[in-house]
Amino acid sequence: MSPTPEFEPIPGGVTAAAGFVAWAGACGIKPGAPEGKHDLAVVYSTEPAVGAATFTTNRVKAAPVRVSLSHAKAAQTRAVVLNSGNANACTGLPGLEAAKRTVRATAAALKISMREVLVCSTGRIGVLLPAEKIEQALPGILADPQGHGGAAAAKAIMTSDTVPKEIAVRLTLRGKPVTIGAMAKGAGMIDPNMATMLCVVATDANVSKELLQRALSDAVEHSFNRITVDGDMSTNDTVIALANGASGAAPLARTSPDYARFCAALTHVCRQLAKMIVKDGEGVTKFVEVHVSGAASAGDARAAAEAIANSTLVKCAWFGGDPNWGRILDAVGYSGARIREELVDIFYDGVSAVSGGVASKTPASRILEVVRRERFTVHVNLHLGSGEYTVYTTDLSTEYVRLNMGE
Amino acid sequence: MSPTPEFEPIPGGVTAAAGFVAWAGACGIKPGAPEGKHDLAVVYSTEPAVGAATFTTNRVKAAPVRVSLSHAKAAQTRAVVLNSGNANACTGLPGLEAAKRTVRATAAALKISMREVLVCSTGRIGVLLPAEKIEQALPGILADPQGHGGAAAAKAIMTSDTVPKEIAVRLTLRGKPVTIGAMAKGAGMIDPNMATMLCVVATDANVSKELLQRALSDAVEHSFNRITVDGDMSTNDTVIALANGASGAAPLARTSPDYARFCAALTHVCRQLAKMIVKDGEGVTKFVEVHVSGAASAGDARAAAEAIANSTLVKCAWFGGDPNWGRILDAVGYSGARIREELVDIFYDGVSAVSGGVASKTPASRILEVVRRERFTVHVNLHLGSGEYTVYTTDLSTEYVRLNMGE
Repeated sequence: MSPTPEFEPIPGGVTAAAGFVAWAGACGIKPGAPEGKHDLAVVYSTEPAVGAATFTTNRVKAAPVRVSLSHAKAAQTRAVVLNSGNANACTGLPGLEAAKRTVRATAAALKISMREVLVCSTGRIGVLLPAEKIEQALPGILADPQGHGGAAAAKAIMTSDTVPKEIAVRLTLRGKPVTIGAMAKGAGMIDPNMATMLCVVATDANVSKELLQRALSDAVEHSFNRITVDGDMSTNDTVIALANGASGAAPLARTSPDYARFCAALTHVCRQLAKMIVKDGEGVTKFVEVHVSGAASAGDARAAAEAIANSTLVKCAWFGGDPNWGRILDAVGYSGARIREELVDIFYDGVSAVSGGVASKTPASRILEVVRRERFTVHVNLHLGSGEYTVYTTDLSTEYVRLNMGE
Repeated sequence: MSPTPEFEPIPGGVTAAAGFVAWAGACGIKPGAPEGKHDLAVVYSTEPAVGAATFTTNRVKAAPVRVSLSHAKAAQTRAVVLNSGNANACTGLPGLEAAKRTVRATAAALKISMREVLVCSTGRIGVLLPAEKIEQALPGILADPQGHGGAAAAKAIMTSDTVPKEIAVRLTLRGKPVTIGAMAKGAGMIDPNMATMLCVVATDANVSKELLQRALSDAVEHSFNRITVDGDMSTNDTVIALANGASGAAPLARTSPDYARFCAALTHVCRQLAKMIVKDGEGVTKFVEVHVSGAASAGDARAAAEAIANSTLVKCAWFGGDPNWGRILDAVGYSGARIREELVDIFYDGVSAVSGGVASKTPASRILEVVRRERFTVHVNLHLGSGEYTVYTTDLSTEYVRLNMGE
């Protein structure tokens, strides 16, 4: 993570930007959790704000996703309420009602309209969210107008995450210091949970809803959409951005260099959070960047990179520190990407393993040394065109299986 | 495996049909194997025969696949030579030459043309096949005109298989007893091998090359193409059928009921071998049949069934005996199949787990009891149309990871 001159990393998370407050508290949703274990977070803009969001493309969508999909169309978005411990997925119409009750309680406590509230859930699936617990606890949690801070919120949304994930950066836009802060949760799914990825970004930039959505969609495409732990896509995945203009900066124009810099900073924030999610994946011992270049098209590059990153055989080999390039070539072969086997080169951290489709002359010990690292890059050059793609992924460990085999 | 009235299971394998001989022997290809460990098999028709074949659709194709693809077009096919211990994949032009030398040595020893010989390899990839070892050993191995029998051949082609796989059935065609015998290997990939699936079918039916190919393609589609252990497809997968007419039966006509019965018997043979391969998969503790019905199209049914069968999360849950239907619904959701969540039903061995997209009223203990079985069926009904598909698969165990993590 080399510092980019365009923006400066600063401490803090989702409340780092001006005009944002966050609360965290316990509603008793997390099953079997100790009394007082936090399972609710609220992020709120004290000033009017615009919102943008991207959601899971899974055709099975959790109730909170359905509600947020609708509310995200509103001109203003001022709050996000998130619970952990229950995904409120596969819960039918009662689930939808529970999501709406959560939104209603939040809107009432904050004295804003329901349409200004988005909702996220993560945790156990197939079990109705006990909305009455949220209704009872919310007024108490939101009682302190100062809130509990971004760090507390980042912690409250954790499920099997081992560390909270937050980040903030500052940059100058239209001559004023502007902050982008964010929090996320990811990791995985201990029975019977889902591998839900949630992220809330809060910025005091002055940006229109349309340009915020454009920036967010692009940032997600280059960050959260490029990570994979097990290839399974959750029913609850949600990324939300709020922008309230509290920095006092003038509005960003679509074609301005400042908007481009805002987009770059937002992408950086999302990418750093995405990498934190991968590294904190369940049972992960290795962080691997898979880079495919020279593909006949960008789509081919993506197909090849994702086939490699999702191959259980490739991932098991990485876990064992085994540079099994045959499995990588095999995955590329069935990915659907056009290839000419005799042109394919494969490198581990720049060390040649395959040259022209056959084993290179590199001594095995040199490649072994790379694959035993905790972090390395696999680069596959197909030498057919200019298509490129990068995916961040992990190994597949015995611990992963153990964590996901249920009780 | 209930006996089908149309054909009778009989003992034996690839030499069960009249006019087939098989040999097995040691060439010293298997690395680190004890002296004399068998790694070569030859199946030979003593009479002129026709051949049919299907190959991996992986764009990375091993040298033996390239040679066999070409030779399979010949009017006559009389022999198949198979080696274990080396896949001769990703070995470039020298690999192609090694595969041709193997074919040449076999043709010379059997006094047939090179074009009448197909070749298969399985084992270590990226290492050139030592063709000279095969050339040296072959004459000795083929010396006995009686051969060593189908069982010896089935054993010689094993890699990480724990049991040899063979089957034979008899049926009456055109008034004469006709036999279909076969052997296969599958299992998996202990570093740095590939999960290669090989199968040789030998029948004394009197069937044209064209009708044999038609029957084989259809049989493979309903058997080997419906199994998945880890979703990875090998560079070497090959299914070959030889038919020599030695039963003395009259030729089969395309539209005759006898040809339909031949096709059914061939499909049965392939399906039984496919199930044996799944059950003998690496680290497998459970055999699961995934059946999707009510899909909007056959393609949707297939996409949904394969997404379930290849989900690492679903497979880990099965390993733990955990009826995690949320993961199944999640996989269906991202499979690309059209669904209406509120219509989806899921059953474990006929016991309802999900009804109309939400948890059914079945007590959890009833479903748990099914998922703890060594063998069960997951049935997903999408209630949208008449598309159906079945896949045979396994769980994903800690042992699988251990076997595939290399040294």
